[in-house]
Order: sequence, then structure tokens, then C-alpha cells
Amino acid sequence: MRVGILGGGQLGRMLALAGYPLGLSFRVFDPAPDACAGQVVPDCVTAAFDDEAALRRFSDGLDVVTYEWENVPVETVRFLSRLVPVYPPAEALEDSQDRFVEKSLFRQLGIATAPFAAVGSLEELRQSLRLIGLPAVLKTRRGGYDGKGQQVLRSAADVGPAWQELGGSPLILEGFVPFRRELSIIAVRAPRGAVVPRQQLDESADFAFYPLVENVHRGGILRTSRAPAPGVSEELQAEAEDIAARVMDATRYRGVLAVELFEHEGHLLANEMAPRVHNSGHWSIEGAETSQFENHLRAVCGLPLGATAPLGHSAMVNLIGAVPKSDEVLAVPGAHLHLYGKEPRPGRKLGHVTVRRGAVSAIESSLSQIARLIENERG
Amino acid sequence: MRVGILGGGQLGRMLALAGYPLGLSFRVFDPAPDACAGQVVPDCVTAAFDDEAALRRFSDGLDVVTYEWENVPVETVRFLSRLVPVYPPAEALEDSQDRFVEKSLFRQLGIATAPFAAVGSLEELRQSLRLIGLPAVLKTRRGGYDGKGQQVLRSAADVGPAWQELGGSPLILEGFVPFRRELSIIAVRAPRGAVVPRQQLDESADFAFYPLVENVHRGGILRTSRAPAPGVSEELQAEAEDIAARVMDATRYRGVLAVELFEHEGHLLANEMAPRVHNSGHWSIEGAETSQFENHLRAVCGLPLGATAPLGHSAMVNLIGAVPKSDEVLAVPGAHLHLYGKEPRPGRKLGHVTVRRGAVSAIESSLSQIARLIENERG
Repeated sequence: MRVGILGGGQLGRMLALAGYPLGLSFRVFDPAPDACAGQVVPDCVTAAFDDEAALRRFSDGLDVVTYEWENVPVETVRFLSRLVPVYPPAEALEDSQDRFVEKSLFRQLGIATAPFAAVGSLEELRQSLRLIGLPAVLKTRRGGYDGKGQQVLRSAADVGPAWQELGGSPLILEGFVPFRRELSIIAVRAPRGAVVPRQQLDESADFAFYPLVENVHRGGILRTSRAPAPGVSEELQAEAEDIAARVMDATRYRGVLAVELFEHEGHLLANEMAPRVHNSGHWSIEGAETSQFENHLRAVCGLPLGATAPLGHSAMVNLIGAVPKSDEVLAVPGAHLHLYGKEPRPGRKLGHVTVRRGAVSAIESSLSQIARLIENERG
Repeated sequence: MRVGILGGGQLGRMLALAGYPLGLSFRVFDPAPDACAGQVVPDCVTAAFDDEAALRRFSDGLDVVTYEWENVPVETVRFLSRLVPVYPPAEALEDSQDRFVEKSLFRQLGIATAPFAAVGSLEELRQSLRLIGLPAVLKTRRGGYDGKGQQVLRSAADVGPAWQELGGSPLILEGFVPFRRELSIIAVRAPRGAVVPRQQLDESADFAFYPLVENVHRGGILRTSRAPAPGVSEELQAEAEDIAARVMDATRYRGVLAVELFEHEGHLLANEMAPRVHNSGHWSIEGAETSQFENHLRAVCGLPLGATAPLGHSAMVNLIGAVPKSDEVLAVPGAHLHLYGKEPRPGRKLGHVTVRRGAVSAIESSLSQIARLIENERG
């Protein structure tokens, strides 16, 4: 099968690397001529996402299209969907692009979230704050990522400046939950039968769920994921799977969905979702029986899903802005290096390291060695 | 680092797929415009191995060159070695291309082999047969692979026809050893320090050895490898490692070396060697901490070697001439599919399946399911 990928960043690159062994071939679409997936995919189309002629050319001869970036314009996906099946479905993409729509979907599906409200004016902001209370977080509804487009409101004095900063866009106010930790679940849904346009799908589907992962963010960017997350009960895992399954059933989903969660008072609150392979699932390349990338492609191509059982314990560390020397990283016990072939730039995700070991204690020892290498590199 | 690969078959393809995550980039040289590595490596040179202008162009900007096919002309490697470091060294390649030279090297290093003799005439053949006895195998010294260029001599009546068939080339006669089974060892040697031309190498080196693998051939082609080979004592593993280390030290080796062995009366006889990644090491992609492909690149690029410990039990089945349906293969528990993107042709290696499971009994159950799928495909 011939698979098109919208977006040529590291997620597209890792999708292609996971798909080649399955006999899949790829074509990548990205506005940037130096998109890093192009280093491993000879067939690339460089054009803007609204270039319909280029999209037509891109779709020619493809069996299915997927995307690796959640800010691909929904119009692009809808346009392509008339030419070739595109998964995950445009509706899931659209819901995920607006934090208020996304949280409303969670609420509508009976999934717990932090309290939230849409904010269109300073007056609405003040009203919502009376209901939700302080501290709270004011966010743009669209386009924010890696901590951008957010302001924490700790006291009444923060309200004016935050509004100054963000008030030009539609906003959402979210209550600040004193959660215990951040978790995420990577889930896969694969409708049975051939890959057909969504209207023709029957409703039976297979599911696969990876074990819950514990994530540590700093400066709004994911730094470390531990998989499986330590100390997760069967009940908590089941709660996470139920959350993901509700969203996927509601959107008649095909592919990998990531849901970021807060653990709070023994239960889960849904924070946001990403209708694509996800940074907190990179550990699965070495750490699970089948990686998230392969399972996404299996789902999208109508192949049976692979097992998601973990192989020992894993931890993933992002390499952001700078990359330690390869020979030093590779000398750390259990370390597996993944570089994305991107030019270094502050705050840019350039690669990751996954440590896979037999025991949790060994993981922590390797992690601290990698942390030291990253510190040294920063000088 | 920028790595050149001579040969663009499945081994080159899998080398590139293993090297991309390390941040390596690749250029492939192959006489065939449709070499399957070209599907995953955008930068390919299509030219004959004796095209010096093309070899110069190929070498431009590369940090190191390796090869994936043991019949690359030694002159090609020597020519390139004057432009860029090439590993494994030309001497190991040269030795491996002539069965008599290869077996003489084994003998000279104190490594046991089946009895053998060079044969240049019918008279020499008859003389050698008196020493070696029947049954025996007559082989061309050069160019044979996958069972081609061989004749088994069971009785005196076979001698004339075998000579008729093969007598035009320099030959080797080998005694037929009633060995218990065929094993192989994948070994890696990495001289310390930077990647430099071989003359400048100091002699200290790191080694890594994979567990012995049990191989089943049919029609001269490898069908199945089981890793680790069942029932291997520590002594037998040490014997295999010693054999590989002797060859690698003698040739001041850098990279992966495969040695095919016969287990006979509790000890090992060396049958042949391949100065490259090897079909009997494909299981290591899923079945070992670090794959043979990654470790070959780590050695060739002067990076520290990765651990070779097995992850559970694995078995690899070659897909030859025809490929079962992907969805059926992927539904087999523990199965990992590897297709090479090659056009089907009788006897051609088109892909392999590795089954990785926790227990040996589970391996055998999955293997028999795959065998059934292969049978069905053949009709």
C-alpha cells in the first residue's frame, strides 16, 4: 500500500521508518523543503497546505492518507478526503484544534475534566473566574502548543496583563487542578474490514491500548516519559482506556489517539487529546511489542493491530535545542538514540533517547546519566 | 556522519533503517536502478562496480563506506579505500570470496573445519577424494551462494558428472561431515578511537557477540533461524566467540562478521564466513537489545557497541519467492513482518518474519502458523 503523510517532521519520519518493514511506501507533504522526513522518504511534495493542485498531485496513486501534525488545516483534510480515504477522521482533528470544543466533547461524553469556560471578553473572563476561582489558566482556544499561548492567573492582579497578552484571540479559562501527576494514554482503534471512505464504515472495531505513561513537562515541553507509569492500578488503567475508547467511538476513529490526563484524587481528568502518534508514545519503539508508529499504520492501512505489551521498563527523554555527543549517549546502559536530522535551534525537539531496562532502579540510573550529558551539552 | 553502502539490496535497506535513528545519513551504490534500498535512501548512485568516475562521485563527502554484499569486487573496495575509510577491511572481503582461501585462513588460525582440498583438475579431484573420502561436496571456490555452484558426491559414479558441471572453475572439495546441526555466530569488532584508514589503527578493540543461532537450510537457502539456539552450553558459545575473534583479530576487522558453523561431536567446525550483516542475524532487530544492523554501523562509525542480550526467544523465517498476505502474517502472535520491496521471483528473498515470544513453546506454535501461511501462498 502507498501511504501519504501530511507533515514531514519527526513524527512523519518515524512513521515511515516503522512502515517500510511492512512493505508500505510513503509520500510526504510539507510546506518546508527541508522537512526532516524527506531525508528518509524519497517521494516528497513541497507546497502550502492550501495548494489544491499540489494536494491533488500528492493524492495521486495513494491508498490512504494520514497526518502527523494536529495543526494541519481541517480544510486540507476535507479536500483530500474527497480524493482518498484520510485517517484519523477530519472531525477528530477539528475537535482537537479548539481547546473549548475538545473539552466540551469530553464533557458531553461523560469524561471528567478540570472546570472550564469559553472566554470572549474581559467581562466573560471576570465572570468565569468567579465560578472557577483562582488559580486558573487562560489559554488560546486554537494554535497553542508546547506551553505557548498560556497565562497562569494566580491573583486578581494577573487578570489584566493576561487579557492584554491573549485577549486578541478566542480563549478558554481552565481551573487549576492540584493534580498528583500528568499521565497519558496512547490508544489505537481500527475499524474492521478494508480501508474505505468513512461513510461506508461499519461500526465494529478493534482496540489496543498502551500502558499509562507518566510525563514530566518543563517550560511547557515534555521532557521525560516513564512507561509503564509506576504505581498504576488496574482500575486507573481501565479508566484511561475507557476515556480513550469513548472519544474514539464518538469520532468513528481510525489510528492512534493520545489523551493527556491528570491524576487527581485517584481518578483521571482529561486535559487534551492529539489525533496522531504522540511524543509520550516514542518509548514504544523499543519498549513495547509493537510501536505506536507501526500500530498507527496498521490501523490506517486496515491491517490487524499488534500487541502493546511493554518489554521491561522504559523511559524516554527528549533532546531539546541541543544534542549530547552520540558516543556518550550510546555508552549509557540500555540507551537507544533517535535523532531527527533537524538543525539545532533553541527549544526545538531534535531527538530523543529511550532507555529500556529490566528493572525500574536501572532506569533511574541510566536517566541520571543522560540528564548529566544533556546538562554538559548546555554548558 | 555520512555513510556509503556498496550494494542496495535488503541488507543495505535494513542498514539504512537502523542508522537513521542514530542521525546517520546514507548514500547507496548499486548497479541496478531498482535496488530496493533506493526506496528508503533518496541519495543513490546507479553504476557498475568498476566505474571509477562513479565511485569517485559516490565517495564525495562520505565519512566512511561499508558494503552489504560479499561479492562486491575487491578492486572496488581497494579503489575506494584510497579515497575514504572502508570497513570491513578489503582483506576480509577477499578471503571470504574464495572458499579455499577462507578455509585455509581458518586452518592457519587453528580453527577446525571439515577436511578440504583445492581442486584444479580431474586428477586432483580423484587424488583428494582418496584422502577425504565419500560422501563429499565439490564447490566452486568463488561466486557460489544459496546452494549454487555445488555438487554432492555420494558415490564414485557422481565424480564424472560433477566435474562436467563445475570443472570449468577453480574448485574446492570438502569432506561431508555428519554434523548435528548448523549454527552461526554474529560477532562485532570495533577498534577503539576515531574512524581512520586502517594503517593508522591501533590494535585495541571492543567486541560484542550475539548468542549462537540455529539455522535450517532447504535447497541451499536459509529458511529458519532460532535465536538463541536451543541447548547451547556456555562452552559452545565461548568456542564460537573464540572462532570469530580469531578471524576478526587476524584481519584487523571493523564491523559485523558472521561465521557459519557445524556442531559436530560437541564442538564446532567453521564452514564459511560473511564479512557483513547476515541473514541469520535478522532476528536481532526485535530479538536483541541492539540489532546487528545498528551494531555494524556503530562499529563502522566509531560509536560504542550496543548490548547483544536477547529479548526473550526469537525465530526468523525467510519469505522466498512469494509473500503471504500481510494481514495474515501480522495476526500471528509475536510476528514482526519485514518486506524488502522487491519484485517476486522464484527463489528470491523477498522478506522475513521474526517471531519474538516469552517462551520457546510459544515460538514453535507461531512458527507453524507462519509455515502454514507460506504453504497456502504457494498453493
